[in-house]
Amino acid sequence: MDPENDTARMLAVAVEEALTGLAEGGIPIGAALFGPDGELLGRGHNRRVQDGDPSMHAETAAFRDAGRLRGYRRTVMVTTLSPCWYCSGLVRQFGIGRVVIGEARTFSGGHDWLAEHGVRITLLDDPECVRMMSGFIAAQPELWFEDIGE
Amino acid sequence: MDPENDTARMLAVAVEEALTGLAEGGIPIGAALFGPDGELLGRGHNRRVQDGDPSMHAETAAFRDAGRLRGYRRTVMVTTLSPCWYCSGLVRQFGIGRVVIGEARTFSGGHDWLAEHGVRITLLDDPECVRMMSGFIAAQPELWFEDIGE
Repeated sequence: MDPENDTARMLAVAVEEALTGLAEGGIPIGAALFGPDGELLGRGHNRRVQDGDPSMHAETAAFRDAGRLRGYRRTVMVTTLSPCWYCSGLVRQFGIGRVVIGEARTFSGGHDWLAEHGVRITLLDDPECVRMMSGFIAAQPELWFEDIGE
Repeated sequence: MDPENDTARMLAVAVEEALTGLAEGGIPIGAALFGPDGELLGRGHNRRVQDGDPSMHAETAAFRDAGRLRGYRRTVMVTTLSPCWYCSGLVRQFGIGRVVIGEARTFSGGHDWLAEHGVRITLLDDPECVRMMSGFIAAQPELWFEDIGE
């Protein structure tokens, strides 16, 4: 299916990743990278707790999982939460063409900046994503603030 | 020694990392993260070729190597090359206070943007860094452009 009309299916993969991370005792943010025909290229979730690795945010984990690619213009990054500056920088540097965001209520990163630089942004305001993230922040605020460097 | 007056020693670690990467057949960009008293917290180099991992730029590798930390304001990221948007986003998100850059002649990333957002930037224009990077780009342009998503 054309990824344009396929946000629910794509977001479901990112949510599944986030829930896997939560079940592992980690930060529940998930992401997935899809190709021009809606095919899954890579998926992942935040791994700060699991691997002791602060560099593995959901988006960077999905990007890594996709391996080496030549050209990201027609790819879509789907994430449960608005991308932080680190992950927004990833999107801009590699020219990822579109970002689909579960929600930006609990945290608002660089998605407006990305839009200014020509990235297509789809903000879903998904209630499940809001519930998942707000529940996590309330339960483990220190871990959350560590993850965003605050 | 106060890292303020210690750029040569700090850059030497980043250059050593870059040369290690080159010897491994990889992209010769190295970085290191130092603490408030000039102590080494983490070091690394680009690992696209070695690990098939496009997410490991020099700066992200050094950041990962430092492990989980609480607060980066008084840390210094030292890199052989101007940080791309991805790595600049890392610096901004985690509030790294200062970036020391070997050179920005062969590639100019987001260091002006970081300066606008309060990050102290020291641009050294180091001839060894310029020679190393320009030699690599001339020898393997496709690999270089892959690494910056162009």
